[in-house]
Amino acid sequence: MELNPLYIIKISGNIIDDEHRLDAFLQQFSLLQGKKILVHGGGKLATKMADQLHIPQQMIEGRRVTDEATLRIVTMVYAGYINKTIVAGLQKYGNNAIGLTGADGNCILAHKRQHAGIDYGYVGDIDAVNTTLLHELLEQHAAIVVAPITHDGKGQLLNTNADTIAQEIAKALSNLYQTILIYSFEKKGVLLDINDESSVITVMDKTKYQVLKTEGKIFAGMVPKLDNAFAAIDAGVGKVIIGQAEELASLINASSGTTIQ
Amino acid sequence: MELNPLYIIKISGNIIDDEHRLDAFLQQFSLLQGKKILVHGGGKLATKMADQLHIPQQMIEGRRVTDEATLRIVTMVYAGYINKTIVAGLQKYGNNAIGLTGADGNCILAHKRQHAGIDYGYVGDIDAVNTTLLHELLEQHAAIVVAPITHDGKGQLLNTNADTIAQEIAKALSNLYQTILIYSFEKKGVLLDINDESSVITVMDKTKYQVLKTEGKIFAGMVPKLDNAFAAIDAGVGKVIIGQAEELASLINASSGTTIQ
Repeated sequence: MELNPLYIIKISGNIIDDEHRLDAFLQQFSLLQGKKILVHGGGKLATKMADQLHIPQQMIEGRRVTDEATLRIVTMVYAGYINKTIVAGLQKYGNNAIGLTGADGNCILAHKRQHAGIDYGYVGDIDAVNTTLLHELLEQHAAIVVAPITHDGKGQLLNTNADTIAQEIAKALSNLYQTILIYSFEKKGVLLDINDESSVITVMDKTKYQVLKTEGKIFAGMVPKLDNAFAAIDAGVGKVIIGQAEELASLINASSGTTIQ
Repeated sequence: MELNPLYIIKISGNIIDDEHRLDAFLQQFSLLQGKKILVHGGGKLATKMADQLHIPQQMIEGRRVTDEATLRIVTMVYAGYINKTIVAGLQKYGNNAIGLTGADGNCILAHKRQHAGIDYGYVGDIDAVNTTLLHELLEQHAAIVVAPITHDGKGQLLNTNADTIAQEIAKALSNLYQTILIYSFEKKGVLLDINDESSVITVMDKTKYQVLKTEGKIFAGMVPKLDNAFAAIDAGVGKVIIGQAEELASLINASSGTTIQ
């Protein structure tokens, strides 16, 4: 049986922080035919709010610690302001959207991160994606907008990485749909030469990835991104596409970005 | 055809502001059998946030003006923090809840209030309740939690009175369900003697209301509340119950509170 395509698109902070870029992206997203889920991160507003409210932000090894006051802020900003601004923005373009956190419909169950010697606070590691509500809404032709907040089923909300949420949702829905996971970032795709935006690698499989790693052409921050992409594919995701959100239509028809399969 | 009962319960700020009272109420709400919608107001957190962020709050004739900065705050607090705290709190009690604003699924369409000579800012007056998503979710046995934020369909979120939202939802769903609209407030019900909590009027119809008004026993703030309740009943709502949220079970079996029909 041929499964219907489902696009799971993660957008990052730089789009969210720019009203005009966000609006242009939402218009493109609304034109995308078929089933679709938009996962958004946080942007700078949460940090700005924490500053204005004089809530000190503690970083451990580059990761933000989510204490109680910070959890309250990210819940307000991510699940409230950003999520509902996106939903209303999609409604403007006639796209019937509905915004969710992992607590809504018990979509994403997580537990507070346990890490020897380091307390990251109210950060959630995902245990399960419950596809019941997501599946129902998708079948009703709703576009789903997911904020990076989950819960533990015991009343505790948890701050959760949006990349991971997108990936876990894609994996969980891969038995119901032909899943296409799109990570938008600042570059046009995975570049052969980091200083040359025209050097996008259009298609990548595991063999090519191994060669490029061995040659030292893929390194640093791209390695965990690509490891995650291949892990998603091993777990049943149809393909992963990396590129710029503004080029959504051409990312999907593979005329831009990097397709990993 | 006998319609299934649907409870639409509006809770006010004093419950939301008290973590323990809110938790106790959510436990009761989770035990309530049947279809149910919880509509929440704002509480004091939005005012506190506006203070801390040095956003002056302007009141005109006792109503808060919602400028752009204030809209951002109420969207964060109502749709983000309060809504998701309630949803996670219900999930704790095994009640599969989903939180919505009027923008989600295009549930509640409103327009910016037009008022000769007074600009209330981003305040919404409701044009239509779209029952499609609400009906689907209720039939899937989800408990719906509604934040007092609507949208205009053109990308603008709007701050909207929670009492009015509860009433408009109840009216719109009255052809699909036998609607019971419950307004929780601080008193045990409508009192014959405002200083005597044991003087609750248990049942009230229009005739009795006219008599009590004529006798001067119902006055001031209760008059618009009761006018609204009778207007809801005229518009198809099955009954309206006024009383304390803590007594939810006995409000429903009519052993406490005031039932208006």
